[in-house]
Amino acid sequence: MLGSIIAAISTPPGKGGVAVIRVSGEGALELSARVFHPASKRALLEYPPRTAIYGFVKDGDEILDDCILTAFPAPASYTGEDTFELSCHGGILLTRTVLELLFKEGAVPAEAGEFTRRAFINGKLTLTEAEAIGTLLDATSREQLRLAGGEQRALLRGELEKIRNILTEVLSSTLARIDYPDEDLGEYSDAECLEALSSARAIISRLTDTYRTGRAIMEGIDTVIVGKPNVGKSTLYNLIVGEDAAIVTDVPGTTRDALVRSTSLGRVTLRLTDTAGIRGGEGLDRVEKIGIERSLERLRTAELVIHVLESSGISDEDKSIIELLSESPAAKLCVINKCDTGTPVPYEIPAVFDKVLEISAEVRPAEALTALEGAVEELFIDERLSPRHDAMVASARQQAALLRARDMLERAIEALCLGMPADAVSSDIELALGAALELDGRAVSEEITSRIFSRFCVGK
Amino acid sequence: MLGSIIAAISTPPGKGGVAVIRVSGEGALELSARVFHPASKRALLEYPPRTAIYGFVKDGDEILDDCILTAFPAPASYTGEDTFELSCHGGILLTRTVLELLFKEGAVPAEAGEFTRRAFINGKLTLTEAEAIGTLLDATSREQLRLAGGEQRALLRGELEKIRNILTEVLSSTLARIDYPDEDLGEYSDAECLEALSSARAIISRLTDTYRTGRAIMEGIDTVIVGKPNVGKSTLYNLIVGEDAAIVTDVPGTTRDALVRSTSLGRVTLRLTDTAGIRGGEGLDRVEKIGIERSLERLRTAELVIHVLESSGISDEDKSIIELLSESPAAKLCVINKCDTGTPVPYEIPAVFDKVLEISAEVRPAEALTALEGAVEELFIDERLSPRHDAMVASARQQAALLRARDMLERAIEALCLGMPADAVSSDIELALGAALELDGRAVSEEITSRIFSRFCVGK
Repeated sequence: MLGSIIAAISTPPGKGGVAVIRVSGEGALELSARVFHPASKRALLEYPPRTAIYGFVKDGDEILDDCILTAFPAPASYTGEDTFELSCHGGILLTRTVLELLFKEGAVPAEAGEFTRRAFINGKLTLTEAEAIGTLLDATSREQLRLAGGEQRALLRGELEKIRNILTEVLSSTLARIDYPDEDLGEYSDAECLEALSSARAIISRLTDTYRTGRAIMEGIDTVIVGKPNVGKSTLYNLIVGEDAAIVTDVPGTTRDALVRSTSLGRVTLRLTDTAGIRGGEGLDRVEKIGIERSLERLRTAELVIHVLESSGISDEDKSIIELLSESPAAKLCVINKCDTGTPVPYEIPAVFDKVLEISAEVRPAEALTALEGAVEELFIDERLSPRHDAMVASARQQAALLRARDMLERAIEALCLGMPADAVSSDIELALGAALELDGRAVSEEITSRIFSRFCVGK
Repeated sequence: MLGSIIAAISTPPGKGGVAVIRVSGEGALELSARVFHPASKRALLEYPPRTAIYGFVKDGDEILDDCILTAFPAPASYTGEDTFELSCHGGILLTRTVLELLFKEGAVPAEAGEFTRRAFINGKLTLTEAEAIGTLLDATSREQLRLAGGEQRALLRGELEKIRNILTEVLSSTLARIDYPDEDLGEYSDAECLEALSSARAIISRLTDTYRTGRAIMEGIDTVIVGKPNVGKSTLYNLIVGEDAAIVTDVPGTTRDALVRSTSLGRVTLRLTDTAGIRGGEGLDRVEKIGIERSLERLRTAELVIHVLESSGISDEDKSIIELLSESPAAKLCVINKCDTGTPVPYEIPAVFDKVLEISAEVRPAEALTALEGAVEELFIDERLSPRHDAMVASARQQAALLRARDMLERAIEALCLGMPADAVSSDIELALGAALELDGRAVSEEITSRIFSRFCVGK
């Protein structure tokens, strides 16, 4: 309920030096005056907004804790509502006791993401920005931080605004022409319309082109490592997810329930499906079947296939894998392992691969890792793009909305070129604008909004 | 090193909505200006102290996060030094990245408890208060919160100051008399000295008398449940530590390594040694040995023994336990279980027990728990004492220092009464004052100080 005062412990659960309780909603500041008493004995309202005030949280005349209160009156707060934060001593029971006092005084427990949701509803954040903040909390690489950070959020917001401004201009001009055909309202000529729509389409295309890189950084590339038994797949796997990797997390896959291990490789995030399944295919009774039965399914959905070959020779198993690969739309990286003898590889490397690396994962692991990083970045990262200078798309939802906007725009441009009636053109522009607005949640369905905010933790 | 700028994440580890980074030391505010840039583009120094400022943490010209900075210039800060706090988006990597930037800019990682240690060194906190804050973070019952809370800290500080004022007055007067025997310095007469010292002794005695209650609430009572097999010991144990108990924690014992389970029973904290050991004594081949061999050792050190008897009769095993109990200094609670038939207990209850309860832990558990709470509170809690109105001692260290002060004071009073020379009297007063000062860490050994602060978490 938007009208209620919500409260939650915003810091992670557990014992710490400091715990922050956040409270937001109409009447929050009055509530704060009932429970918090400045040590100075001055009234809370005498302090300027956003001042850290030392004092006591009291339940009646019993002091629960001495802590710091900072009030953020609306609209200059995270949520856009009257908000205050209590910075308490970080005891678990202590913090809970203070929170319960707030509930007793009329606050209700905040749901996951409810503070950010209110910020969105109150226009403090666009949906795109809210999504980025959710991603920020989960970021496991410096590159992800950049792509979810404030700088990138501002860049993307700027590009989206450009698109919407153009579409709104053209649409209102077209509608004016329909409604008042005889008046000169200074509206765009057909040629000017075409030019404006084309420029909007160009911005959208530039954005959608960034998604391959954005996705590689943020959502990660579904990756599978294949190869005949004992060729060094596990060594390679361990090298990639190894202790030296920045941070390795086990996250449940979003589209299926298998456990997916996300790991950074250079600027790219790889989503390595737990190789136990693939290794299971290497059981004795399976060797004849080239050990790839289980990998087969993975090959079909993977975006990156790393095929590990031996430097000494290419086997029939390898050839079978390569045959399957030739039908896969995935990026294909050939890694010839055990290249530590100095002798050249005695076979011709099939042309199916996008890149070929000669490494020795055991003997020169650091070198192998650098080579892998370089190859994967080359396959997925557009080096001309920088999260610090270029607006980039990094979420499937945003990409889908942009593609929809682009399709509608193309229909509008086509209609315009074919000299179709203005109302046909305007309805396509309207749909394109709708898709562009949806990107920032301005007309997005409640269901999608809920899904986005439910990813947040309580207190955010 | 006191001269360095320390920095740490003060909130609990993990993902949350907000993470607070705390930085303290000379030069901290200059450091903040190097990394933090207000969104308003105004200079940091233009803002009044203690104002929450929205802006960006930048590594060079790269934005790491948008967050809130609050500066607390010395001396009005937690540590008494220049301090600032950054309230960041609570991502794990994000927070670590910001912290690492601070290290790059010259801060060093704070050790556990180092902020509070600096507060102590800079006179912002006495050692007694610092200890209380450490306890506050670990508090698992409302009663513990009260005893570690700000109100109680102020009460105790006041009483300790009274003692020190009296002793300092008397000591300086006595010393003046020694140094300038012929001058009238308005010093105390012997009778006045005696009166003053007696009043100090009375305050100390009043405080040391509170320790039984303070300890029962805070450090907890070493408790053992004994009784013959199948009498309901486990039921009672589970009832006490059960889900309904406020919070149950497993903490390693401080004086031995056995696992001790701390649980609240009414206002009292019980430290129940894991009964697995005791139950082990109930193995078949041990029944003849009354199953108490292992309990024997516990009986010697326990402060509370709960002996569970059956309502139907008293066995030889029980009689052996009672014999052992008669030699124990522990408080002895007799719990006659399975009293659900309405028939009176058919045997005489030995006089060794401090209290006797008739309960039925299985049939009427809530009633049994209330009876247990009442009995244990009656045994350990002085009902006239309230953590909200009476200064109370709740730590063994404080109690030891107070007892030392009292002993010295008694020697001084005796010397005075015996008409011994003033320098003999003054040396005893000096020792008493030393003990009283040590209580607040003013002359305490470095080793003890370190032990106290090492209990804190990093960031406090």
